[in-house]
Formats: sequence, structure tokens, C-alpha cells
Amino acid sequence: MSLATPLPPHDADRLVAAAMAAADVAGCVIRPFFRMGVAADDKSDQSPVTIADRTAERAIRAVLAERLPDHAVLGEEFGLERGGARYCWVIDPVDGTRAFLTGRPIFGTLIALLQDGEPVLGIIDQPVTGERWIGVRGRPTRYESRWPGTAGTRECPEIGLAELSCTSPEMIADAPTPHWDALRRHAKRVTWGGDCYSYGLLALGQVDIIAECTMKIWDWAALVPVIEGAGGRVTDWHGRPLHADSDGTVLAVGDPALLPGVVSLLTTGSPKHA
Amino acid sequence: MSLATPLPPHDADRLVAAAMAAADVAGCVIRPFFRMGVAADDKSDQSPVTIADRTAERAIRAVLAERLPDHAVLGEEFGLERGGARYCWVIDPVDGTRAFLTGRPIFGTLIALLQDGEPVLGIIDQPVTGERWIGVRGRPTRYESRWPGTAGTRECPEIGLAELSCTSPEMIADAPTPHWDALRRHAKRVTWGGDCYSYGLLALGQVDIIAECTMKIWDWAALVPVIEGAGGRVTDWHGRPLHADSDGTVLAVGDPALLPGVVSLLTTGSPKHA
Repeated sequence: MSLATPLPPHDADRLVAAAMAAADVAGCVIRPFFRMGVAADDKSDQSPVTIADRTAERAIRAVLAERLPDHAVLGEEFGLERGGARYCWVIDPVDGTRAFLTGRPIFGTLIALLQDGEPVLGIIDQPVTGERWIGVRGRPTRYESRWPGTAGTRECPEIGLAELSCTSPEMIADAPTPHWDALRRHAKRVTWGGDCYSYGLLALGQVDIIAECTMKIWDWAALVPVIEGAGGRVTDWHGRPLHADSDGTVLAVGDPALLPGVVSLLTTGSPKHA
Repeated sequence: MSLATPLPPHDADRLVAAAMAAADVAGCVIRPFFRMGVAADDKSDQSPVTIADRTAERAIRAVLAERLPDHAVLGEEFGLERGGARYCWVIDPVDGTRAFLTGRPIFGTLIALLQDGEPVLGIIDQPVTGERWIGVRGRPTRYESRWPGTAGTRECPEIGLAELSCTSPEMIADAPTPHWDALRRHAKRVTWGGDCYSYGLLALGQVDIIAECTMKIWDWAALVPVIEGAGGRVTDWHGRPLHADSDGTVLAVGDPALLPGVVSLLTTGSPKHA
């Protein structure tokens, strides 16, 4: 949180408008493929990719390139363009491709903007339910939806009261520490599945803790402004800010008071530092 | 499948109308509580229950008691009324209370009718997304929604091509055989979470195999007519029809050709019988 400062209001509005336009276009691309039996190719890391992922990323790039031709773009499917720019958009066109492929309306399009390497703007968009979370550093997060919910994390002073969420046990099997299970035992409940959508729910005060790993920058960059603008915190499992060379662990808490105890559990297996 | 015969058309229409009215009322009860921070009490089996569960079950019972006063009703929250009747409604007002409590729109209301102990009618209703699956023995399953999707399972001739789904690894930890993981290794992919909603997705041809356990009759009764009317099969892990004294294991396959291999995996750890 050192170099980056809040975006000037005029710039922020222009950049949010670009991100919103890109998310709109991505949704138009993705919706016709939802539940339509699109084929999935397995990438080198065994994660699936579909025509929806690829087309949505191309469409987002088209919108951003015309509006902000000097900005870099890094996407999950097509890599880095115009590297070296101060501003870099980071895109995951379909986060939760497994959910998308099985017809679950809880995947999302992630669009983030990095300023000097730090996320200052993030959108989580669910194009089937019509839910969108818009986070801008220094501003309160907005939640646009026809469903109930208001952006804002909830108080949760104790881990024993916390709703924990995680996308899959397979992810945790690759964790750098063996202590995720200690966190699960201390939390009130765990709910599985959700990808980026769970982070949106944390920003609505529905979930208290998410601890995941094997996360790439396009998986987490958009989540940071959304959750921090809703009152929560996003770090790695050691409680450090995320950056491009992070170890892939991501910890989100709705109530910042939870952070020290959860970090202690994840790094030592005990809720309190010795 | 021995005693029960298809419902006569006139009876079936009247019973479906009652079930639809009950699901409508349950949805009206549940929606105002969605994402509203309702408190959860832990029941004796540690599963959570809320005012939404209790009120929805009461409302469903009210609708059924007025329309069909001679029928029995068995619900998750309030037990059995008028036991001994030939027809018995089996209700889970909120299947997936964890999902409901964390704001995920993939829980569901389950309403089933047993005739001589066998499920002949089932509804899966998602009151937030507005999706409803209606299954009646001897009829094709219907899917009502503003979203894409048509009732009908898909062909999947090999386990290696199958999308596997399961609500949680905690459930599998209590399984009566240790072989669920063999099924996971043979399947193409696994996606976590979903409760009854995953069975609806299987009935839409989005998911191929679901293998779960610790399921009570109100968790599975409505699923059987929905999935069988969509072309799939629902059994226990041994491939036997489910009944009131089943062991809590539930196996659903979209393509009946998958059944012998999946049963073999779940019971022996190998995809083929010796």
C-alpha cells in the first residue's frame, strides 16, 4: 500500500466507466454460452478453458485498447500486452470455469486495474444473475443487483463465529502450509465452492473468512479493492499485502480484527502467536 | 419401483398443482430472509436451521393440509403428521441451509410425494433465481426458469468424461465405504457445493454424476422423479432403489450407462467388477 495513492476523482470515473463497459461486453459474450454445452480444453495447468473464456477476454481487451491505448493488459488466456506501463489491467474473463461448465450461476468476470503494481480498481461481475461489485481504492464498494444485499462486510470478532468459505479441497491439498484444517476446525462452519463469487459474498457481509491458495494475480487483483472498500482485508496467509510475486495464498477477512488470529492459525496451526 | 404405478392424469394434475402452490408459498416466505442476516440455530445433528426453514415448512404444511387433508406430511423440521396414509408428502423447506446462510442462490426447497413409500412427484425450487424443476413419475421432467436450460440429462458413456459433483468433503468423510476418492480420480472433474441444486443441474445435462451420503429421505425424495423424468437414475451407492430405510448414500447419474461402473467404483474402488 506504499506507492499507490487513491485515484484522482476524474481519472477514477473514467477508469470505472471503462471497466464497466468491458464487464458489460464480457457479459454479453458469456451469457449465450451459459448451459449450452460448450466444450472445454484443458490447459497446461489442467484448468479448463472454453470459447466463452477466450472470446470474453478478447472483447474486454478490445474495449480497453480503444479507450486506454497506453495501458498494459494482462489476461489469464492471452498474456501480457504493452508491459511496462504504469497502469495495467488484469483480467480473468471467467473465474470459476468449472462452475460455468456445470451451469452454476456463481462464476464471475474479474477486471482489475493495477497502478504501480497495486490494485486500485476491481470489478466482480456475475453476468447471469446480473450482480456486480465495483471497488475503487479510497471509495466505498458498490453492489449493483436486482437481489438483496448492500456492500459492507460484517463484524465478526471471533473465529468461532465465522463462516469460512473455500472453492475446493483440491486447492487446499496444494497449500504451502498444512494448517488450513486447523482454521476449519476453529471456524463456525465451512461452505464449499464459489470462486470469486464467495469474495463478493464476503463483501456483502455473508461470509467472514476465505482462505485459498494456488491463486494467480488475475484471480485476486479485482478482489482487493472490492473487499477493502467494503471494510475487509485481503492479504496472503502471512498477513502480507498481495503483489505480483506473492506465493499464491490469499486470505480475505470481512472483519479486520480476525486477521491476526487467522494468520496465526494458517501459519502455525494455533490461533495465538506463542 | 414395484408397488407404485404412474399417477392417473387427473390425480397427477391436482397433486402437481398442490405442490406448485406449496412451493410458491415457500418461496414467498424464504425470499425476504435471503441475505438478511438471519440467525442460525444448530440442531442436534449440528446442521443449522433458521426462521426461514421453520416458517417455510409451516407454510407448506398449511397449503397441503387444506388441499389434501388425508395425506401424511413428513418434514425435516417438524416431523411426521398423519402417518400411515398411502400418500405422504416429504419436505425439506431449505435444502442447503449453509448456502442460504452465506447468501448463495443455490439452495432449494424440496417437496416430494410418496405413494406407497415410493417418490412419484418431486419439486426442486430455487426461490431467488426463480428456477423450478417438476418431476412426475411417468412424465418428462419440466424446468421452469427465465434462464437457459431444458430438462433432460446428457449422454456420458464413460466415467472419464463425467463431471462429478458433491456438496462437501465433510459429508464424504462420513461415507460407509472409503472409495469415493476412487470415483473422483476416474471422473473428468469435480465441482463442490450445490446441495439439491446440483441434482437440478444433472437433470439439465450440466453434471453427470453426484455421489453423496448422510442423506435423509427429505434430502433425496424430490430428486428421484425429477432426475428419472429427465432420463437419469437415482440409487444408493450399491445401485439399489432408495427407500425410507436406505443407508443415506445417494448416487445420481445422468446417463444410466454410467451406473454399473460408478457403483463398482464406490463399492470396490475399481471401475469393473472382478
